[in-house]
Amino acid sequence: MGITLEQAQAAVNAAKEKAQELDLKMNIALVDPGANLTAFARMDGAWLGSIDIAVKKARTARFFDMPTGDLGQASQPGGSLYNIEHSNGGLITFPGGIPIKDGNGEIIGAIGVSGSTVENDHTVAEAGMNAVK
Amino acid sequence: MGITLEQAQAAVNAAKEKAQELDLKMNIALVDPGANLTAFARMDGAWLGSIDIAVKKARTARFFDMPTGDLGQASQPGGSLYNIEHSNGGLITFPGGIPIKDGNGEIIGAIGVSGSTVENDHTVAEAGMNAVK
Amino acid sequence: MGITLEQAQAAVNAAKEKAQELDLKMNIALVDPGANLTAFARMDGAWLGSIDIAVKKARTARFFDMPTGDLGQASQPGGSLYNIEHSNGGLITFPGGIPIKDGNGEIIGAIGVSGSTVENDHTVAEAGMNAVK
Amino acid sequence: MGITLEQAQAAVNAAKEKAQELDLKMNIALVDPGANLTAFARMDGAWLGSIDIAVKKARTARFFDMPTGDLGQASQPGGSLYNIEHSNGGLITFPGGIPIKDGNGEIIGAIGVSGSTVENDHTVAEAGMNAVK
Repeated sequence: MGITLEQAQAAVNAAKEKAQELDLKMNIALVDPGANLTAFARMDGAWLGSIDIAVKKARTARFFDMPTGDLGQASQPGGSLYNIEHSNGGLITFPGGIPIKDGNGEIIGAIGVSGSTVENDHTVAEAGMNAVK
Repeated sequence: MGITLEQAQAAVNAAKEKAQELDLKMNIALVDPGANLTAFARMDGAWLGSIDIAVKKARTARFFDMPTGDLGQASQPGGSLYNIEHSNGGLITFPGGIPIKDGNGEIIGAIGVSGSTVENDHTVAEAGMNAVK
Repeated sequence: MGITLEQAQAAVNAAKEKAQELDLKMNIALVDPGANLTAFARMDGAWLGSIDIAVKKARTARFFDMPTGDLGQASQPGGSLYNIEHSNGGLITFPGGIPIKDGNGEIIGAIGVSGSTVENDHTVAEAGMNAVK
Repeated sequence: MGITLEQAQAAVNAAKEKAQELDLKMNIALVDPGANLTAFARMDGAWLGSIDIAVKKARTARFFDMPTGDLGQASQPGGSLYNIEHSNGGLITFPGGIPIKDGNGEIIGAIGVSGSTVENDHTVAEAGMNAVK
């Protein structure tokens, strides 16, 4: 089963609240198991360039079923996946993208957040992920 | 002033309600005055291929400040704008995209809806547009 | 010899003046003999979607050394160049793009204009072309 | 409010004069708050490959509301934004792109310059930025 719009919107809202709590302006994207866009929100004043990055983080997290930052560790010069970012129309491999699982550990989608430091992006993405029951 | 996230989400929700009322499954996209994505929702079971169409309809409506269907009348074979769809990374010129104005008649963004007949797409987009105060 | 920046800017200015005279808001693009962008101006409030169209018209006019509208007559369904618009990353084949020649009849670049009816686009492009000595 | 064509052309002219003073051949691009092209000029003999770089620098500076070189410091191997350049259809993250603010500190657009060393590109972009009142 894929993430429902209701779940995706709950994730958007939780991420938005976490961002407001931290005084951040974020772009938030949710994709389904097919890595297709399900929900998106750009907070007022959030970076324009982060629209595409939020979507690419969510897609990247689902493409490889791992947090985007994990992939980035292997894509460095000399790493085993060097420049994997060239695939799939462009990957983003720094933190801020996380797969989302249902109660049985099945991956039902992914969230991508962009608009601040990668630490903040990841924190806000986690808040969104945790809102999916 | 551009459309706010609050306004964009109100449009998404109103469009979604109209779609439910008509028993339709829609993709709904909102863009700002720069034609950049502001909010998006895909209803459960809506066509995957309509994700990109909803976004392109919203962008097209803002690109030319008119309903997408108006443009399509001029882009037919023999029409004055034949094959304009090849510009801007791909336009969609059948109904379902509408510019959104504020109280002063200033365009603050646009909505694009895709997932059913073009008549239904336009009706649902109108419901979204009307929710923006 | 290719069009100089001075000539290209003179064309931009002449096109802009003609547009103001006709109360139009235009996007104006000039390319060199290699079909590469040399000068561009978007008048305040001109359609966003016409940025790319103005550039593509100028490129198309130089790609085939003829006014864009001439090409469009052959690209209709059943025509000998049906759907040629799919080439070169997207062509625009309705009026508004014109090659520019020097005093010896040598093509030194092209102008593309977009923002109104194709008749107005062509008229404004012609004004720009005529400013190149 | 976005940058006007008059402001954008003043920036182009100031950048061009600075480039002439330094005996350089530059490509100069201005974008509006939506990161859409507003004005462009290629000085005679400037690198063809710098047309796209100038535009991408201007867009990148507006996408993240900072000088492009700042972003490049974080996108190096091992940096927190490694390979961010793969987003948004291609970013340029070395110096030469700068956001432009109005008197109230509001960002109204950005300038991108390319054609020489990145130090020179940045110097010429700054001259353009300073011409916007």
